[in-house]
Amino acid sequence: MLGQMMSQPLLISSLLVHAERHHGDREIVSRRVEGDLHRYTYRDLAKRARRMANALAGLGVGFGDRVGTLAWNGYRHVELYYGASGSGVVLHTLNPRLHPDQLVWIADDAQDKVMFFDLTFLPLIEATAQRFASVQHFVLMADRSHMPADSKIPGLICYEDLIEGASDQYDWPVFDENTASSLCYTSGTTGNPKGVLYSHRSSLLHCYGCALPDSTNLSARDVVLPVVPMFHVNAWGMAYAAPMVGAKLVLPGPALDGKSLYDLFESEGVTFSAGVPTVWQGLMAYTEEHGLSFSTMKRTVIGGSACPAAMIETFEQKYGVTVLHGWGMTEMSPLGTVCALKASHEDLDWDAQLKIKSTQGRALFGVDMKIVDENGDELPWDGESAGELMVRGPWIIDSYFNRKEDPLVRDKAGLGWFPTGDVSAITPDGFMRITDRSKDVIKSGGEWIGSIDRENIAMGHPAVAMAACIAAPHPKWDERPLLVVVKKPGKEVTREEVLAFFEGKVAKWWIPDDVVFTDEIPLGATGKMQKNKLREQFADHVLPTV
Amino acid sequence: MLGQMMSQPLLISSLLVHAERHHGDREIVSRRVEGDLHRYTYRDLAKRARRMANALAGLGVGFGDRVGTLAWNGYRHVELYYGASGSGVVLHTLNPRLHPDQLVWIADDAQDKVMFFDLTFLPLIEATAQRFASVQHFVLMADRSHMPADSKIPGLICYEDLIEGASDQYDWPVFDENTASSLCYTSGTTGNPKGVLYSHRSSLLHCYGCALPDSTNLSARDVVLPVVPMFHVNAWGMAYAAPMVGAKLVLPGPALDGKSLYDLFESEGVTFSAGVPTVWQGLMAYTEEHGLSFSTMKRTVIGGSACPAAMIETFEQKYGVTVLHGWGMTEMSPLGTVCALKASHEDLDWDAQLKIKSTQGRALFGVDMKIVDENGDELPWDGESAGELMVRGPWIIDSYFNRKEDPLVRDKAGLGWFPTGDVSAITPDGFMRITDRSKDVIKSGGEWIGSIDRENIAMGHPAVAMAACIAAPHPKWDERPLLVVVKKPGKEVTREEVLAFFEGKVAKWWIPDDVVFTDEIPLGATGKMQKNKLREQFADHVLPTV
Repeated sequence: MLGQMMSQPLLISSLLVHAERHHGDREIVSRRVEGDLHRYTYRDLAKRARRMANALAGLGVGFGDRVGTLAWNGYRHVELYYGASGSGVVLHTLNPRLHPDQLVWIADDAQDKVMFFDLTFLPLIEATAQRFASVQHFVLMADRSHMPADSKIPGLICYEDLIEGASDQYDWPVFDENTASSLCYTSGTTGNPKGVLYSHRSSLLHCYGCALPDSTNLSARDVVLPVVPMFHVNAWGMAYAAPMVGAKLVLPGPALDGKSLYDLFESEGVTFSAGVPTVWQGLMAYTEEHGLSFSTMKRTVIGGSACPAAMIETFEQKYGVTVLHGWGMTEMSPLGTVCALKASHEDLDWDAQLKIKSTQGRALFGVDMKIVDENGDELPWDGESAGELMVRGPWIIDSYFNRKEDPLVRDKAGLGWFPTGDVSAITPDGFMRITDRSKDVIKSGGEWIGSIDRENIAMGHPAVAMAACIAAPHPKWDERPLLVVVKKPGKEVTREEVLAFFEGKVAKWWIPDDVVFTDEIPLGATGKMQKNKLREQFADHVLPTV
Repeated sequence: MLGQMMSQPLLISSLLVHAERHHGDREIVSRRVEGDLHRYTYRDLAKRARRMANALAGLGVGFGDRVGTLAWNGYRHVELYYGASGSGVVLHTLNPRLHPDQLVWIADDAQDKVMFFDLTFLPLIEATAQRFASVQHFVLMADRSHMPADSKIPGLICYEDLIEGASDQYDWPVFDENTASSLCYTSGTTGNPKGVLYSHRSSLLHCYGCALPDSTNLSARDVVLPVVPMFHVNAWGMAYAAPMVGAKLVLPGPALDGKSLYDLFESEGVTFSAGVPTVWQGLMAYTEEHGLSFSTMKRTVIGGSACPAAMIETFEQKYGVTVLHGWGMTEMSPLGTVCALKASHEDLDWDAQLKIKSTQGRALFGVDMKIVDENGDELPWDGESAGELMVRGPWIIDSYFNRKEDPLVRDKAGLGWFPTGDVSAITPDGFMRITDRSKDVIKSGGEWIGSIDRENIAMGHPAVAMAACIAAPHPKWDERPLLVVVKKPGKEVTREEVLAFFEGKVAKWWIPDDVVFTDEIPLGATGKMQKNKLREQFADHVLPTV
């Protein structure tokens, strides 16, 4: 017997419709690439998103087609979030930090029909436009005064012209909530990046989950500044959650340095932000240097990589900003756990609370997690037993875009769990702590850098016998790659020569920071390099800082 | 193109699974009909709910079958919420305040196969058991020591025996989230009550919506005491939302007097409650009489009928308890609007804030609303224009159970809106104020009393020519029915005789409180009684208080 409630699909357009009707006057403030501040309201956003929906149709983009973006956090990017997804087009956000070869590969894999890009990326697109085979139109996200006089990009379209030329009358279509809404590629620790294809349903359920009091606790009284990029996992859902609750949205554009962020926090009355530890390091270095404090900031979610206890302590004890340590993945939309205290923790002293706040927290409703041993058997939640972390839920990936293999692991009841690649322990009351992050991956400023690709490149050098790429601690980026090299017998090669060998092969920030030479890399029983031992051996290695 | 995220239905069982895994030690404290306090944890609840699922199957209750409950807020009722709905059985909560004839009619309409009832209702069931044609088993929600030695109910089952006899091993089935989960009948302002059949999906979406920071703002640090009954609209979703977030649940049983509630608030550290104004009047009379204050209580949702400004002021200014004025309907699961301030209100003085807090608030995401004129055209949100309030959303009714007629009104785009019967105005920033509640209905202590039935009964009296039943202000119940009677020419009848005429025909609390006689009832153009004019005429009428 079916219930008799309204059958109303969960659609991304409904977030914008709600914001326009119920929070029409609430502001969206954006720092533009041009440097100035732009401000308008959800009502304005809704109007321009409708124009964009019409404009996309005018460019020949149909239901289910992909459009790519290479853009910072800004109002035009938000217009594309809604104009594209709302009309049934799939928004494909590309990470501009990737190597151009990878961007071309990804856009081709996604078959993007249009590529929208910020002024920052004009040189990049000018250099690569010919290689984007599927892209029929390039749109520069600027007004006419910022269009290049003589562009090498054929038929380059001006964003503002495109918007102006389209009607603001548009009825958001109603369709199956399982329709694809947006696409984001993982950084790809091994091999090519893999696409995660979110649905309207998964995005909206994630949005409810991440606004809850024990998640980001978002309300209409909040002023939200997502430092986390809209080009990666939808800025952790903030561009959806803010209109859902009617929060003011402050978008920092490309200016993520301490001073720019601090000025924006104070001038716009930011109450909540979300970012990775390295960005906060820059912000806190600035406030400490100038003896500043936060006058409106109340709390921040910190994730992407583990937040050091010292940072949590400074935020909470010095600045009065509550830190919500979180954990998630591109494959998880991304939010999985948030470290909000339970009632039993409220009377603990600060040191005991800090110990809890240093864990990645507990699962929000909508995510279930478990840790398993090598046989796939579930391990107890005793705070000590560590095993691979597995997750499932309605905003967690089922399969990768354009890939045939099934990434899930089935349990005895046949339910699929996504193996995160992270190793963790869980306390009896559900607080999860990543103990080994993942075996091979280097987390640099919240981005993952795979080790195997770097090893493969290094081993292509004629003097290198074996190479292991491991994480080494770095004061600014948390971790950076350190390459451990065994030379071929009778061959010589220098640190500088090895590093030079990487140039042009990968993005600059993917090149290891340092190289050390050793006589032997320890191998396990099955012939795999034992990187745990290497990490111990080089734990005190000091990376050069530029 | 479909997204590639996990296809995981929204099921009520997942709330309990989450609570058991992530908040297993959190308490549920219940005041029993027997008077004592019972306490256990979500882990215990989960175990007993699994036993109940097995027990229901053992009684021959299958997927989609209905089981009825006549019960207060208590842990056994919660076990039925999950044991029944979780296994695909429809939980039908009956309102024990209804007249026995209506209870029999409702159970028959629903075709309830089993009837669970609290000890309080043993006399009621003993008197009516033979009339519940579809009911195959009656279960008394008590342990063996409280079973009657010689019951008139054939085959009466003891709840604890039933639970003890069933295994606690049970895998919650996975099925379509649109499956019916629970059934609740409206009080029925005209004619027979109408059933609202909720789905798992609608219940879970409502649960997300009502836990949001701008709704009830529920977290794992909360201790929730729902005064609103689990026998009506699922205690406003609290029995679902508390396990979702890991809040402690405190259930008051039948003891809703000021002293009992206050003692429970203080002894269990209640931080949040939800109730109707009349219950709070009793509580506040008690605290004022004894000079008490609330030591842990932080906020309360008040709905069911309009909350007087004086009550909001006392709660906030005297007791430091934030009042969230809310509005909803059985047909809306029930939450529609909550009056959480916006950022622009934070700096207003108290009088200005109180004016806003006296409105019914703004729509949460998941509910859209509009006001329309007599032609169905949408009226502006100017705070002045008043029209019929229409709503739509995924937790709002599509059609009534067992009824063929379509209750929705289609707009020009073909979308169905549920006409609430309430008349309201909406401010430009989305705050909704009920101006005329509804034309005919009397809201007595949060329950609706229809006027037409009473008029029909009165007009059955040989001396009554015409009768109009209208709302008159009442110090305790907010409103009570006042009957306005025109006598037949040459006939005489007294106030007492008219009231006596109602006895045995409807539940006692549905009998009008008073009768006034008049020469003429004003009629409108179409011959309908103009009750607005009557209400004005008798606005100063003082009802007798018992």
